[in-house]
Amino acid sequence: MKFNNNLKEIRHKIREGSFTSTTSGLNPGYTQTNVAILPSQYALDFMIFCQRNPKSCPLVEVLTPGKFEARISSPNSDIRTDVPKYRIFQSGKMIDEVTDIIDYWRDDFVTFLLGCSFTFERALIDSGIQLKHYDLKKNVAMYISNINSVSSDFFSGNMVVSMRWIKNQDIEKAIETTKKYPSMHGEPIHIGDPEKIGILDISNPDFGDFFEPDSNNYSPVFWACGVTPQVVALKSKIPIMITHSPGHMFITDLRDDDFKFE
Amino acid sequence: MKFNNNLKEIRHKIREGSFTSTTSGLNPGYTQTNVAILPSQYALDFMIFCQRNPKSCPLVEVLTPGKFEARISSPNSDIRTDVPKYRIFQSGKMIDEVTDIIDYWRDDFVTFLLGCSFTFERALIDSGIQLKHYDLKKNVAMYISNINSVSSDFFSGNMVVSMRWIKNQDIEKAIETTKKYPSMHGEPIHIGDPEKIGILDISNPDFGDFFEPDSNNYSPVFWACGVTPQVVALKSKIPIMITHSPGHMFITDLRDDDFKFE
Repeated sequence: MKFNNNLKEIRHKIREGSFTSTTSGLNPGYTQTNVAILPSQYALDFMIFCQRNPKSCPLVEVLTPGKFEARISSPNSDIRTDVPKYRIFQSGKMIDEVTDIIDYWRDDFVTFLLGCSFTFERALIDSGIQLKHYDLKKNVAMYISNINSVSSDFFSGNMVVSMRWIKNQDIEKAIETTKKYPSMHGEPIHIGDPEKIGILDISNPDFGDFFEPDSNNYSPVFWACGVTPQVVALKSKIPIMITHSPGHMFITDLRDDDFKFE
Repeated sequence: MKFNNNLKEIRHKIREGSFTSTTSGLNPGYTQTNVAILPSQYALDFMIFCQRNPKSCPLVEVLTPGKFEARISSPNSDIRTDVPKYRIFQSGKMIDEVTDIIDYWRDDFVTFLLGCSFTFERALIDSGIQLKHYDLKKNVAMYISNINSVSSDFFSGNMVVSMRWIKNQDIEKAIETTKKYPSMHGEPIHIGDPEKIGILDISNPDFGDFFEPDSNNYSPVFWACGVTPQVVALKSKIPIMITHSPGHMFITDLRDDDFKFE
């Protein structure tokens, strides 16, 4: 109940524009999602792209054209106001960053809510695994790998992966823990050698922040990343697309445990 | 390898129209699917309906508009010819049953391949559970339950369930076995009392065949059924829709084991 009140309160603050920060660590246990909004003429193809790439593009909810209430995952929400910060892209270029999209909204917009690694990060922390980027208050490092996504008609591109340094003795546990969230990126897609997946300079991520581990006792562990569909869509130079700003996720009424398989 | 040759051979026979029977028991280990083909203007909404009801509508592959090769699940296939028997529906009424749909094909058709209980039935049999309808060469009994599906804009309706008599001492094993196929209907949605899910006369299924068990030592066990999206679409009186004929499934190149989670 306490959590639920917190959720109402934080959603209200986000809606009225008084909370515009990242949502990392907010309302633990509640599922946060990536957001991608695009015109309906691209929506079927985009949804097919997501269905073909479930590890990087886990669909949590898709709203029908023009709808802005995520009625399945978050009754009474309004996707036009309930994300702390949005980015507006025209033909792949960011033209604005705003705290609501009332003025940009169109009746043919289709909203996609996609799973986010916050869900399995919470599980990793709960299982006793240290995630250094949390302590350092940094964004996780993300890279465009050389792993091909399965294309649809309009959308194609490589998988974006997120990297976390995991202590060697914790790697098995990290695999087992994240494997239990098959619809939230699931187990790692690669462990150990960044070059094997096309990452030539690990110190230079495409998104987020890099830092060196404290000791040699860590390995880089890579997971499929929910930023993939956004990057793919923007690369396609879609005329208009709206996303959340990095780290400024949509907080649903769903619980991370709903996605746990055991 | 033997299986693969068999698969090529049987697909060839289906394509040329010399095999028009049910596919039950064919090419064991290869995943068979339900087929639903509808005009692209309904496709996004139908796909959203499926995404909202994953237990009854597991998406195996969705082809983009006009495409008839299921290139992800079955390279070189042709969905217009590679199903043994098709049904053509106009405004919810069956108007034809054919062995290919070359003459009905339209460039705006979108093909949905949906998971089928043959996948978990194979697993049940492999785990030593007897499925009497196989021995009797009957179709499984299916019922329209009172369990609401989550609607989309155009599609709504109740979940269709399939029923199998399972020996009481095997029920736990049946749950554990089918739970391992979360994207192929997964564990049962109800066990024991048909009335609890709106089935007032178990001897009178909506589809398939009913038979009494040999003894009192059996319980009726109900699973979400992949016929649900077809029934829902037909109820909506969609102007045109093509499906496989009951039991005459599309055989993919995928393996049932690909859907096993453990």
